[in-house]
Amino acid sequence: MVKVLINGYGSIGKRVADAVSKQKDMEVLGVTKTKPDFEARLAVEKGYKLYCAIPDKERLKAFEDAGIDVEGTILDVIEEADIVVDAAPKKIGKQNLESIYKPHKVKAILQGGEKANDVEDNFNALWSYERCFGKDYVRVVSCNTTGLCRILYAINSVVEINKARIVLVRRAVDPNDDKNGPVNAIKPNPVVVPSHHGPDVVSVIPEFEGKIITSAVIVPTTLMHMHTLMVEVNNNISREKLLEAIKETPRIKLFKAEEGFESTAKIIEYARDIGRLRYDLPELAVWEESVNVLENEIFLMQAVHQESIVIPENIDCIRAMLELESDKFKSIDKTNKALGIE
Amino acid sequence: MVKVLINGYGSIGKRVADAVSKQKDMEVLGVTKTKPDFEARLAVEKGYKLYCAIPDKERLKAFEDAGIDVEGTILDVIEEADIVVDAAPKKIGKQNLESIYKPHKVKAILQGGEKANDVEDNFNALWSYERCFGKDYVRVVSCNTTGLCRILYAINSVVEINKARIVLVRRAVDPNDDKNGPVNAIKPNPVVVPSHHGPDVVSVIPEFEGKIITSAVIVPTTLMHMHTLMVEVNNNISREKLLEAIKETPRIKLFKAEEGFESTAKIIEYARDIGRLRYDLPELAVWEESVNVLENEIFLMQAVHQESIVIPENIDCIRAMLELESDKFKSIDKTNKALGIE
Repeated sequence: MVKVLINGYGSIGKRVADAVSKQKDMEVLGVTKTKPDFEARLAVEKGYKLYCAIPDKERLKAFEDAGIDVEGTILDVIEEADIVVDAAPKKIGKQNLESIYKPHKVKAILQGGEKANDVEDNFNALWSYERCFGKDYVRVVSCNTTGLCRILYAINSVVEINKARIVLVRRAVDPNDDKNGPVNAIKPNPVVVPSHHGPDVVSVIPEFEGKIITSAVIVPTTLMHMHTLMVEVNNNISREKLLEAIKETPRIKLFKAEEGFESTAKIIEYARDIGRLRYDLPELAVWEESVNVLENEIFLMQAVHQESIVIPENIDCIRAMLELESDKFKSIDKTNKALGIE
Repeated sequence: MVKVLINGYGSIGKRVADAVSKQKDMEVLGVTKTKPDFEARLAVEKGYKLYCAIPDKERLKAFEDAGIDVEGTILDVIEEADIVVDAAPKKIGKQNLESIYKPHKVKAILQGGEKANDVEDNFNALWSYERCFGKDYVRVVSCNTTGLCRILYAINSVVEINKARIVLVRRAVDPNDDKNGPVNAIKPNPVVVPSHHGPDVVSVIPEFEGKIITSAVIVPTTLMHMHTLMVEVNNNISREKLLEAIKETPRIKLFKAEEGFESTAKIIEYARDIGRLRYDLPELAVWEESVNVLENEIFLMQAVHQESIVIPENIDCIRAMLELESDKFKSIDKTNKALGIE
């Protein structure tokens, strides 16, 4: 059992902790928090050993004052870890890498908020498992990039991609955010076209350099991101064969509008109805009716549950970096079975 | 002075009435309402002659009971009209055409909610003014189609379009709608790709048949629609020349994110600040920073104020159908000057 420290028990960190604890080949060494809020209390109640993320006596005392059991600071546990999953806010991951992980010689996974060049490589289970095998510092790419990597894998498995044009319609904030917006606006973000999402996909799939153009807007919703894909291909492909490839790709799930899945709200209602913890849907959701092939171009629309899509990727990334499993599909299968996903 | 009857004093109708009354060559004969609500009362207070849209005694009595002055029903005034602008809800326009306008031999303009084939032709001031000259039954295309026609005119004025791919991010409801949604969801609408918006553009610009592919989603906002355009072209074009063409096209306004126009909310705030009635922005809003040319492809993002973009088009359509002005640019100029738009 390899020991995994989760640095930052927030949206991603708490989900990674729960996912790690469900695997047979890894365990949660501990989790960290910067402040003694309800998430810190729940971590302790769940049985996770809690550490203060900031090595500072005042910070530590705040936990004790709040009556939350804390084992010490991150520096008291870091060297026991086989690997750290960093789930700190954007840009803090890079700081932690330089100030904590590298000096203490511990392997680390950063999240998609950090930059591609801050690490040795960029991870998606389908595309770069082998490349990241045994590496020390790797980034699991963002939710949007993960969703795009999965669908491009499915398409690429049956046809050669010439040029992919993608428009991202991003959720404004996560459901627990009671501070930011927009509440009533559509926001080009970035306002320049193309956006950075194309290059982020290329950090995982270098052969798509120059072949992927993205633009993005932000809209007032919390549930999921949405993508519209228009993919020019070099060979003939039937809609049926494409649907088959999508079905066969792990972690993609087809939803039919005809069955009532008319929006992201209905897809999330499904995740709630089947009893998914926190209504998580780590599978990429593709609308079956939207899948279309016109001449040499593929069209489809998909939705990404931003809080959970990267969770199984973090688990596979741990296995690759610690060389626990050399076959990516075996790792994907282990992760999926343990998490009850498809 | 030609006499214009506005059938349906709702979102579009009340704006058309105000726009007609500002022109020198036309006047408002009357407006209609199906029920005696605050809009009906405001119509009378503004000095418009009000008629009951439904020729029925009970309906008429409801206005009298509510203490709102009503001149009679639409059938008491229809034959005095030189033209009717139908601004009834979707599908009612077609019914009115068959049951009222044709039997009473009065020219009529329908709105974008009706079908392209219900009428003789489809109107955009830049593209089909000459075609609609003197015709009897014409449709002014929808807000989204109007916005697309304008930008495609600008692009087409300097470069040959090979294929336009457009993703529409549509506002959920108008600001006065306290009934419908979605409040928190992204909804593919339609869930099939391509959407009907491409063919609707083709109803105005037949030469774009097979050259325009659209898809659309609905998002929780009330202010404006947004479009992302990716347009493959056959000739070389510089960004500067393209921007020049956009600036020279009537009813398009460039907004810089750098100046604070970071979202549709900021664009509408501008319309409020400059004192536009109802914060209307009949000009198509294009984000200057989004305009880009990469190899043979043009990219840009634009926003459409759904309540007002078609208003000047209705005015020009009246002039074309009644043969008041043979030069489209002269009509556009008259309309714009009277409305104080660019």
